[in-house]
Amino acid sequence: MTIPPWKSLADAKRQSTLDAIPSKWRIEEPIPPPTELRDVTGSYIQQFLSPREIEITELDAYGIAEKTTTGQWTALEVTEAFCHRAALAHQLVHCLHEAFFDSALEEAKRLDAYFAEHKKPLGPLHGLPVSLKDQFHVKGVETTMGYVGWIDTFQGIKDDPRRGVFESELVRELRGLGAVLYCKTSVPATLMCGETVNNIITYTHNPKNRLLSCGGSSGGEGALIALKGSPGGFGTDIGGSVRIPAVFNGLHGIRPSAGRIPYEGAANSMDGQNTILSVSGPLASTARSLQLLFKAVLSQQPWLHDPLALELPWRSDIEQETRALVEQSAKDPSKLAFAIMKNDGMVVPHPPIARALDIVEQTLKRLGHKVIEWNPPSHATAVKLASATYNFDGGADALYHFGLSGEGPPSQIIVGGGTPQKNALEIAQTNVAKREYQKQYMDYWNSTADLTGTGRPVDGVLFPTAPHAAVVPTQYHHVGYSSCLNLLDYTSVVFPVTNADKNLDAAQPRETFLSELDEKIYKDYDADVYDGAPAGVQLFGRRLQEEKMLVLAEYVSAAVRST
Amino acid sequence: MTIPPWKSLADAKRQSTLDAIPSKWRIEEPIPPPTELRDVTGSYIQQFLSPREIEITELDAYGIAEKTTTGQWTALEVTEAFCHRAALAHQLVHCLHEAFFDSALEEAKRLDAYFAEHKKPLGPLHGLPVSLKDQFHVKGVETTMGYVGWIDTFQGIKDDPRRGVFESELVRELRGLGAVLYCKTSVPATLMCGETVNNIITYTHNPKNRLLSCGGSSGGEGALIALKGSPGGFGTDIGGSVRIPAVFNGLHGIRPSAGRIPYEGAANSMDGQNTILSVSGPLASTARSLQLLFKAVLSQQPWLHDPLALELPWRSDIEQETRALVEQSAKDPSKLAFAIMKNDGMVVPHPPIARALDIVEQTLKRLGHKVIEWNPPSHATAVKLASATYNFDGGADALYHFGLSGEGPPSQIIVGGGTPQKNALEIAQTNVAKREYQKQYMDYWNSTADLTGTGRPVDGVLFPTAPHAAVVPTQYHHVGYSSCLNLLDYTSVVFPVTNADKNLDAAQPRETFLSELDEKIYKDYDADVYDGAPAGVQLFGRRLQEEKMLVLAEYVSAAVRST
Repeated sequence: MTIPPWKSLADAKRQSTLDAIPSKWRIEEPIPPPTELRDVTGSYIQQFLSPREIEITELDAYGIAEKTTTGQWTALEVTEAFCHRAALAHQLVHCLHEAFFDSALEEAKRLDAYFAEHKKPLGPLHGLPVSLKDQFHVKGVETTMGYVGWIDTFQGIKDDPRRGVFESELVRELRGLGAVLYCKTSVPATLMCGETVNNIITYTHNPKNRLLSCGGSSGGEGALIALKGSPGGFGTDIGGSVRIPAVFNGLHGIRPSAGRIPYEGAANSMDGQNTILSVSGPLASTARSLQLLFKAVLSQQPWLHDPLALELPWRSDIEQETRALVEQSAKDPSKLAFAIMKNDGMVVPHPPIARALDIVEQTLKRLGHKVIEWNPPSHATAVKLASATYNFDGGADALYHFGLSGEGPPSQIIVGGGTPQKNALEIAQTNVAKREYQKQYMDYWNSTADLTGTGRPVDGVLFPTAPHAAVVPTQYHHVGYSSCLNLLDYTSVVFPVTNADKNLDAAQPRETFLSELDEKIYKDYDADVYDGAPAGVQLFGRRLQEEKMLVLAEYVSAAVRST
Repeated sequence: MTIPPWKSLADAKRQSTLDAIPSKWRIEEPIPPPTELRDVTGSYIQQFLSPREIEITELDAYGIAEKTTTGQWTALEVTEAFCHRAALAHQLVHCLHEAFFDSALEEAKRLDAYFAEHKKPLGPLHGLPVSLKDQFHVKGVETTMGYVGWIDTFQGIKDDPRRGVFESELVRELRGLGAVLYCKTSVPATLMCGETVNNIITYTHNPKNRLLSCGGSSGGEGALIALKGSPGGFGTDIGGSVRIPAVFNGLHGIRPSAGRIPYEGAANSMDGQNTILSVSGPLASTARSLQLLFKAVLSQQPWLHDPLALELPWRSDIEQETRALVEQSAKDPSKLAFAIMKNDGMVVPHPPIARALDIVEQTLKRLGHKVIEWNPPSHATAVKLASATYNFDGGADALYHFGLSGEGPPSQIIVGGGTPQKNALEIAQTNVAKREYQKQYMDYWNSTADLTGTGRPVDGVLFPTAPHAAVVPTQYHHVGYSSCLNLLDYTSVVFPVTNADKNLDAAQPRETFLSELDEKIYKDYDADVYDGAPAGVQLFGRRLQEEKMLVLAEYVSAAVRST
């Protein structure tokens, strides 16, 4: 049997990423199989690191930036520690597409020289390593986005002058902020998948439970940050692709509304579909790190360099108002009111997610906040419109890019949904239906001012991010918990709450189901397999409410942790 | 020969608008033909009004609001004066689709009672009559948008429950501000036309020169405000439809970037085409009135009620910074720098427009400002992409709505451009090409920081709005001077500069042409026919720069007037 050419190319590319890892950082002993050791975070990965490397890499991005922007830690030492840990992470769960440690170490040296000369940092991220989903172009580094046909090209185009030299706007801004770029992380081919699988790196597993997926499409980011091979990074989200891997890996992540974090010059799938725009957003291990990354990017005025970015600097007034509300609510909890929606009317979440949501609800109620039931316009409408949008081109874009090499899509990746390409009138009808739904949802949100007791509508809504705590490979069947918010273009922050626990989260007998899909997903649950998987939730707010939602998510997640 | 049913319907509708005018306000004597009297503004229309009515209606919106919000003038007296003058205006140039004077007078009485009771105005537009393009729904009033098939329906739908009761979001907000709504103004069927012509009201001529068009598509607004039958009103602009009628009628008008003034719940053509969004913006006789209307609407927080509106309140800091720059520039004119582009590389404007642009350039140079030449990425690209966008549906939407009654489109209205409907991939390609062009333009704008001497890129760019000062009916062949800015989503404010003058604006012999279109438009020029037509220009800025551009347009237009 001959090996098809695309497979040789993919194998060589996979090997080249491994080859980028210095031999001193190779794991020589066999890695135990997931059935023997699910969780490779914590003590397992620590065994390969020095105490100093552990100290550095287990501080969060905010804490690291405090050290590196004040000269307490050098960029070089920090960068080297993260390169090492990222190299280990990749060997454990295949979370990298590109590793460019040498140029990162050179950059770190330049930053240290800058600090020595100017006695001040280059910017608020001076010396902080930042990882990037493999959609962002970095000079001297390839972008495959998981397509074999993109190897040795620029976005599939051979001999394109941008190859190897072009940088995405976010990358330019991160450099301006003093961040150190050192790796790009794995994605599913097409990006339209809640798992991370492609014919180059194969599969990225969940480092907290290697029986499960790390999520997708910013899955490599989620896995790498969970292994503390990165203090924070940037993913993208068109249907949940930042939030899913963040929550599956026990992290914080934000899906901002479109127009805040620059997307200009990033590779994408179905580029030019502008009914639901993919957005970029950070993932990190703490809420304060998420804020640091978000705020730092806005300080670069992306609206002067990205035509889709909005002229909305970080609004300190909104941040301060929200912090004031939070502080006042310590004495008078009626100052803040939340809503909760335990299922979306289509699929009931698995027990670990239901329990995570209960924990948050009980925490907020114990603190004295009002938590109302959320009864918005049917989410089925949102999910249907989002799905229709993702299939506007009938799969033409994905088929074209798979076709460049002749590779076949991994089984989880459904190309085009079997529907023909839509025409201008059909697309316009979807756009109108979307706007009408957004208007109904907005009016519903406004109407809750009568129920909260704060004089305002609810401050945020608690909601599952997915029906499951991470997911068994090939069993991600309902993306509606995340995609509904892309359709609405709402701000959503995910945060960790608990972990699936086979003793607490036994399957509950059910006789009636919301739908066939509900029954299918119910049957997929296996308390033993899911045991240990992170279970978090999302807290969402209205469009362009990033300052408010980042502060509220920090408050709620801290409250949950302290109970 | 039998009259087709649609014609009877159209005739009846036209008559019903005339019938809404009280007999005391009918012009009984014959109106002189345009060949005898071109200009019916000023003394001609004044003959039908009392001195008090003239005093009221010839104050600008800002001045009127000063009187009505302080109780110096009653809403009733002001409303009655404008109803009278609007009734006259309609008889002169057919600028109204709907007149609802009785309910306006009732509303004015309620506002006067409110003021008497509360000793304060309802809002910043208390007692100010505001006219609306016939896309905005007002309860109890029809919206035909110039389609015969929309008569007795809601947007062409028979027995729709919204008919007669639904109000557009802008209308709700204007009511909340205390404005008095009293008429809706004429539009071309489809809205995709630089003239105002439909089978109901037939044709709206330019009141300053009735041989010419009032422009379109917010043509009725332009004609009505020029006749001072309205102190200000709202139109919409997808390719120039606010700016063209504003500049053709010697007014100020703004095309804001998408997302500032609410469009929610307004009727539209090709609704759901979201590559270039139609935007709403005010027209008025003075710059300060334009600011009043714009700022007042934002005070209603449209982003809480319109899903496409951005959470961008009126930014007083930007307004104040710009005013400070203007004040400083009185002493040090190098504080402000402009650019000028005299033709778009496709069509050379007629002599009156070239002269208007020269007047502005000379004024700014005399004041000591730097005025650089504007050499952006080819406007032909922008115009081509805009045209492609307007034709995405191949005319399907327009054909459907004409088909409701069986009427044929007026000859100026080109349906679909003869191209087939586009598919998802083609639309996505246009969206990508648009974004790439926007990025190039943005980078060019940034690059001018090296040329201005202010340390900033240019503060605004002066540019024709159309190749002609108003236009001879059926001779609007190049909409590229306005549509390029819709493609870019830039903020543009038009203002009057001068009037075409057959003695100053003789046709200049030319032997070479930029294109066949250029030659055609050159040949269309007739100094005698155009004599007297208003000639203005647009001052455009970057996206979402409304506060800055409104202040700068006020400054530049005042400077031009005082020279």
